[in-house]
Amino acid sequence: MVDAIGYAAKHSFSRLKPLRFQRDEPKPHELQLEVLYCGVCHSDIHQVKNEWSNTVYPCMPGHEVVGRVTKAADGGKFKVGDLVGVGCMIDSCQSCAPCREGDENYCEGPNSWLATYNGPMIPAKKAPTGENIYGRDNTYGGYANLLNVREDFAIRIPDKLKPEEAAPILCAGVTTFSPMRHWGVKKGDKVGVVGLGGLGHMAVKLAKALGAEVTVFTTSPEKKADAEALGATHVTIEKEVTSKAEELATTPGTFDFILSTVPEKHDINAFVALLKRDKSLVIVGALEPMAPVDNQAVAFHRRSVSGSLIGSIRETQEVIDFCAEHGIAPEIEIIPIQQINQAMKKVEKGDVRFRYVIDMASLKDEDGGDEDE
Amino acid sequence: MVDAIGYAAKHSFSRLKPLRFQRDEPKPHELQLEVLYCGVCHSDIHQVKNEWSNTVYPCMPGHEVVGRVTKAADGGKFKVGDLVGVGCMIDSCQSCAPCREGDENYCEGPNSWLATYNGPMIPAKKAPTGENIYGRDNTYGGYANLLNVREDFAIRIPDKLKPEEAAPILCAGVTTFSPMRHWGVKKGDKVGVVGLGGLGHMAVKLAKALGAEVTVFTTSPEKKADAEALGATHVTIEKEVTSKAEELATTPGTFDFILSTVPEKHDINAFVALLKRDKSLVIVGALEPMAPVDNQAVAFHRRSVSGSLIGSIRETQEVIDFCAEHGIAPEIEIIPIQQINQAMKKVEKGDVRFRYVIDMASLKDEDGGDEDE
Repeated sequence: MVDAIGYAAKHSFSRLKPLRFQRDEPKPHELQLEVLYCGVCHSDIHQVKNEWSNTVYPCMPGHEVVGRVTKAADGGKFKVGDLVGVGCMIDSCQSCAPCREGDENYCEGPNSWLATYNGPMIPAKKAPTGENIYGRDNTYGGYANLLNVREDFAIRIPDKLKPEEAAPILCAGVTTFSPMRHWGVKKGDKVGVVGLGGLGHMAVKLAKALGAEVTVFTTSPEKKADAEALGATHVTIEKEVTSKAEELATTPGTFDFILSTVPEKHDINAFVALLKRDKSLVIVGALEPMAPVDNQAVAFHRRSVSGSLIGSIRETQEVIDFCAEHGIAPEIEIIPIQQINQAMKKVEKGDVRFRYVIDMASLKDEDGGDEDE
Repeated sequence: MVDAIGYAAKHSFSRLKPLRFQRDEPKPHELQLEVLYCGVCHSDIHQVKNEWSNTVYPCMPGHEVVGRVTKAADGGKFKVGDLVGVGCMIDSCQSCAPCREGDENYCEGPNSWLATYNGPMIPAKKAPTGENIYGRDNTYGGYANLLNVREDFAIRIPDKLKPEEAAPILCAGVTTFSPMRHWGVKKGDKVGVVGLGGLGHMAVKLAKALGAEVTVFTTSPEKKADAEALGATHVTIEKEVTSKAEELATTPGTFDFILSTVPEKHDINAFVALLKRDKSLVIVGALEPMAPVDNQAVAFHRRSVSGSLIGSIRETQEVIDFCAEHGIAPEIEIIPIQQINQAMKKVEKGDVRFRYVIDMASLKDEDGGDEDE
């Protein structure tokens, strides 16, 4: 075991505070990293506040991690000193069909994949066999100085990317890139992006780099200029569309693909009506019951409403390399970890352009105490 | 104009009663048929009762029609005396992309396709151009002695099929066959059919003939023996699945395709959880807002919830020929048209095994009068 420090919440109503803990020694197939930067994802907030009713406390978030390898087995893929990224997964069962086919993010092992924090995805008590194949529960994420990861789950960060800018690509980037690849977004396609936050702003950049004409749908008129600067050809205030839902229902749609990045329950009916025949709206932001979808709009043009969850390790390396090649970087604001609670409040209000990234050099060896607050 | 008779409802609260009316002379590209049989679809009831808020009165339903050609242009595809079928469409714009590509059921013309009754799908007042390209509104369907149809929209009925049994294939058959073809149901697939009514019972027969292993989900324990007789390998009472929705959410699904044929709003979350990764649940029964779908179950295995609307003319001919080749026929009960109101009540209660078909020889030249009842 190795002494480690990080920031964690002790309860659903408590702020994140310093926490001393111990990391395992890395297993033979694992790396240990010194964390340099960690992005702040809206999921971190959902998880800290137990908004998915599955949080184990203390909860130490962080799954957009860039760090430097400090421990690695000889002869492995990485060596000490390498710059690597870690996204939402640090391991998976390695034996189910999705894992064998390179879709680890859809791992069907008894505990699903091992989430970087609050893992595994299916804890022992919910697993069909009642076991935990990883031997670890309540994993602590990247709001820490050290992190372990299965070597195969570490992403090589190219020199062309700044480490602090690479971090958000590991979740926000791949979560939007993976469905665009899977549903075949290509040059000339008309792509809609609903919501312009951490995920949405990456979706705009990536879709544009794939050659698509991008329309951003946002509730915030003040984000119009931002959306255009990011590469959107059209910016539509959501209300302009949702108020015309009935009229749209009888008009053939023009969009090849729409990605909804809104991180909470919302009404997608008007956006479904914008899709061409046989096309899909894919929800990546909200992991909860959505507002009712009218099957008339879906069926009348054989449309689909689909969901997609982060992306595979292969796709994560692909999007990192794609960003390096196309000069794409997220818009970030660097904060010391001591500002994490204020930053989370701003993320909840949508008041961030567009991703906070924690500079982990700010972390000090202190203990937050036992008070709940 | 030709004198004609049929059964129609004058208001959303009135019974169907005899109505004398006039059919147009068929246009040069049209046939006129003497209707022999007409199936009773749940849509007929939705439309008669204005449950989709778009009914024009009088409403004369009927879109599962088999008849004999009485008028046809010389040199056309059909000649007087031929046995033909007419499904939900009697025409389409013929110029939009879906029409050119043989997907007339997704016609994007200003009035969409011309429904066999209560057509066109988009009336002039809702059309973007305010026009009606068909020159006909409030079409009267197959609960009548005569019907006109664009020659290209008439289906050839093979000798191997009894005309009264062919009728329900023209809507219930193609509506379930089309999505199974589109989503690629194949030999060995595990297919679920939710709801065992007119559509559901055809879905079971067709899926089995395609080589799938079929599971029926029904709310009615008394339909278990029926489902097995139709070809289902497994029959599951819906409550057994829906009550375990939470448990299912963490178990990998085993179904390649699930078709929901329930003709009203219902909760599909438990069924979504039964799908394999990357597979689809397709809703063909309900054309209305569904119960909220939890995107967690959708996204965690990259599933899709899709809709499909009837089928194309090509697919309608294909399913008719497929049924003839495989000896598939719907389970029907023949009624005289004078029993239509009682029959509709039974359909609403699910008390029919499995499709009423009206023997149009029962139709008499009488007028139902003007009273609303």
